[in-house]
Amino acid sequence: MAEKITSRAQDYSQWYIDIVRFAKLADYSDVRGCMVIRPNGYAIWEKMQAALDRMFKETGHVNAYFPLFIPESFIQKEAEHIEGFAPECAVVTHGGGEELQEKLYVRPTSETIIWSSYKKWIQSYRDLPILINQWANVVRWEMRTRLFLRTTEFLWQEGHTAHATETEAKEEVLRMIEVYRHFAEEYMAIPVIVGMKTESEKFAGAHETFCIEAMMQDGKALQAGTSHHLGQNFAKAFDCKFQTKDGSLEYVWASSWGVSTRLIGALIMAHSDDKGLVLPPKLASRQAVIVPILKGDKAAVLEKAVELEKMLKAAGVQVFLDDSEQNTPGWKFAEYELQGIPVRIELGPRDVAAGKCVVARRDTSEKETLEIDTAFPQKIKDLLDSIQTGLFERALRFREEKTKVVTTYEELKAQVEVGFAVAHWDGTPETEAKIKEETKATIRCLPVSKDFATKYGINTEGKCVFSGNPSKQMVVFAKAY
Amino acid sequence: MAEKITSRAQDYSQWYIDIVRFAKLADYSDVRGCMVIRPNGYAIWEKMQAALDRMFKETGHVNAYFPLFIPESFIQKEAEHIEGFAPECAVVTHGGGEELQEKLYVRPTSETIIWSSYKKWIQSYRDLPILINQWANVVRWEMRTRLFLRTTEFLWQEGHTAHATETEAKEEVLRMIEVYRHFAEEYMAIPVIVGMKTESEKFAGAHETFCIEAMMQDGKALQAGTSHHLGQNFAKAFDCKFQTKDGSLEYVWASSWGVSTRLIGALIMAHSDDKGLVLPPKLASRQAVIVPILKGDKAAVLEKAVELEKMLKAAGVQVFLDDSEQNTPGWKFAEYELQGIPVRIELGPRDVAAGKCVVARRDTSEKETLEIDTAFPQKIKDLLDSIQTGLFERALRFREEKTKVVTTYEELKAQVEVGFAVAHWDGTPETEAKIKEETKATIRCLPVSKDFATKYGINTEGKCVFSGNPSKQMVVFAKAY
Repeated sequence: MAEKITSRAQDYSQWYIDIVRFAKLADYSDVRGCMVIRPNGYAIWEKMQAALDRMFKETGHVNAYFPLFIPESFIQKEAEHIEGFAPECAVVTHGGGEELQEKLYVRPTSETIIWSSYKKWIQSYRDLPILINQWANVVRWEMRTRLFLRTTEFLWQEGHTAHATETEAKEEVLRMIEVYRHFAEEYMAIPVIVGMKTESEKFAGAHETFCIEAMMQDGKALQAGTSHHLGQNFAKAFDCKFQTKDGSLEYVWASSWGVSTRLIGALIMAHSDDKGLVLPPKLASRQAVIVPILKGDKAAVLEKAVELEKMLKAAGVQVFLDDSEQNTPGWKFAEYELQGIPVRIELGPRDVAAGKCVVARRDTSEKETLEIDTAFPQKIKDLLDSIQTGLFERALRFREEKTKVVTTYEELKAQVEVGFAVAHWDGTPETEAKIKEETKATIRCLPVSKDFATKYGINTEGKCVFSGNPSKQMVVFAKAY
Repeated sequence: MAEKITSRAQDYSQWYIDIVRFAKLADYSDVRGCMVIRPNGYAIWEKMQAALDRMFKETGHVNAYFPLFIPESFIQKEAEHIEGFAPECAVVTHGGGEELQEKLYVRPTSETIIWSSYKKWIQSYRDLPILINQWANVVRWEMRTRLFLRTTEFLWQEGHTAHATETEAKEEVLRMIEVYRHFAEEYMAIPVIVGMKTESEKFAGAHETFCIEAMMQDGKALQAGTSHHLGQNFAKAFDCKFQTKDGSLEYVWASSWGVSTRLIGALIMAHSDDKGLVLPPKLASRQAVIVPILKGDKAAVLEKAVELEKMLKAAGVQVFLDDSEQNTPGWKFAEYELQGIPVRIELGPRDVAAGKCVVARRDTSEKETLEIDTAFPQKIKDLLDSIQTGLFERALRFREEKTKVVTTYEELKAQVEVGFAVAHWDGTPETEAKIKEETKATIRCLPVSKDFATKYGINTEGKCVFSGNPSKQMVVFAKAY
């Protein structure tokens, strides 16, 4: 805490790094572009994993694990896939002291290695659907890295499903992007736009890519999750056919979907402030801290603090008591604000005498004095709920303030400097590329979220903001992480 | 189920492979020596992870994540470590399309990469202890592989702790081997011998290695977990010193400990039979299956089956109902025996009429008819407990039958063909090596388990079974996986 966090106003990028480092969420390692996820950061990932894993299982999925290494010949089986991924792979050329006959790629994503197994597992429609998820590490050789947001190695989950019909595959793609939307909004407290990627932004090897896009506090977009309709591309690449009910042979339909430790970066950039991390209670492994003010009748204060801790734990609040005398209460206040503990409970000798305590919420810094009575635990739980929804509402208001429908290219250029520009686009990759080149803004998605589409009149016809040519719908332009 | 499982008596090794393949626990992949852990196998790993992770946290540990890649120069920093691990590493020489300036080793274990971080995190005694665990994949280039037991890539957890004193480090080493013992015996239902490895069998870079050793059904040993006292070796290799309370500078003390997906192999080989997998209820994601016999009044049977399922779920039993009409009850019986579901509940029209059902336990194949009344769920829970303890007791009896104190080399040679030989050893690596060469048996450990030591009189003096030289204690010899 000797160092001070750079303010967002002064340098947003440095502010982000300061939060990550000072709150001990992650560190760069001595390996180029790779990060160490420290216990405070990993605890957030564990909370995310638990919530997502439960949702995956509720939607019928099971977990499995496939090899880290992918033979070079596998990666090459799907043309777009190799083009997209091969240049950014780490390659193993030696094993057990000898040069390998075939190079092994460290997985950048697992479609190919998984479909080489699915080919063996699928013979008939009875073997379908396969609904598998994998929690794993992946490696993509990034040139410019940033902790959590873009690192050479990162952790993620990747769902890979196999279906008998295109309809089922498409339903799965949409089901999972909805799971991601729900997770982002209900757990991360971040409003997201569900949409479809353009041809040039979609996954290498997919027919269609759906995504959720979030806005950070600097107005930039962050892609927080994707769900791909893979058609029969990988089934064809691996010659994976199944016998249908009526006895014919058909290629299997596929989806894949994933989110990664990048979500931790999104969480930080969406909610945190100049005092440090701000965590939504549902993703905080420590939701409340009790800081006793050890003056006067220390024993009485400590006794009450322990009682409070027990009371709250019994009510299901993830609370802890910091009764160390090594650090002052002031130091603790600052430290736990830095660490993003949603609620702080202060307890001094006068509070104890009055049967009260002071409760401070991390998100708004508001304080209130509460009676310590039987209703107290429920009040803390209500407060946690209120912080959770408050963070979402604040982020939604922010996004709405920073999102504007633009009708001229000048307006678009100005708007992407501060937030999202909703604009008509003629649907051509040429226009998309030129806008990107000139403004650094990309088409984040063709929104499909009903609320968003309605609010901004997405599904209306108009003229392209760049070319003036006819446009069938509006899209979202933004600079992005 | 078209193929028949090879019997243990006929070919134990093939029996093991058949169980793994037919119960769909794992598959070899198209990558040399790497396995695919299929959903049925991964579900066991998830149960193991949940139980172990809880125990790690209860003993004060937190999770974190360190890079997959280790720079060659790091691996080389600890002399014994490089000698032990370098020959079996996979090496990345290219990344992002270019040859790397320094080769990266895919982690075979993470001591070096972790201590390069600890060096940055530790300055003072206030920074100690560090009690971190990591769940990760590791790669060791194995020549002869066997699903779960020995594969090029496997999943594991590795604890890495840093302490101010040797006493604390040693306490940690013993605390964690005790956690492993508890897990093996209480969850896996496998009795284990806690012991110390000899100099030649210990971890590359450790002062001392403690282990838990289990006996498989063919009488061979399987090392199921290890906990290493690393002394100051890695702190010295990474120049990691801390300021003590009295202001002096000292090297940090270290431990590391791990278990892996190899435990799934141990679980199979300890309990399963010629009909398939046998799972202890605490590690079964599906503890009971309801198989309705859909004859006569189908609707009544189904209704009762659904009611039973609800009743058991409400009581906390992980039960599922297989009401598919695609397969016969007989097929289902065989299939769920193969999959190791601990309890099967059969329900036919006559059972329903009588308010009863037939309950079969997987471990002993015993069947009994039970009243479906309010006490029924508790009876099923008691049955699950009884299966859990029954499996442990059966395995313990088996180990005791196959463990013998031997006093001559001839006896030792005969005994290691059927089980564990407890024998005096003169303490020299020469004797150890010769016995290994001639019998293929290794010293599994110098037992420290009190019950085991007492039962076999381990801590008595005597004469080495091989050299006749004085021996201070007996050790356990066995062939091993």
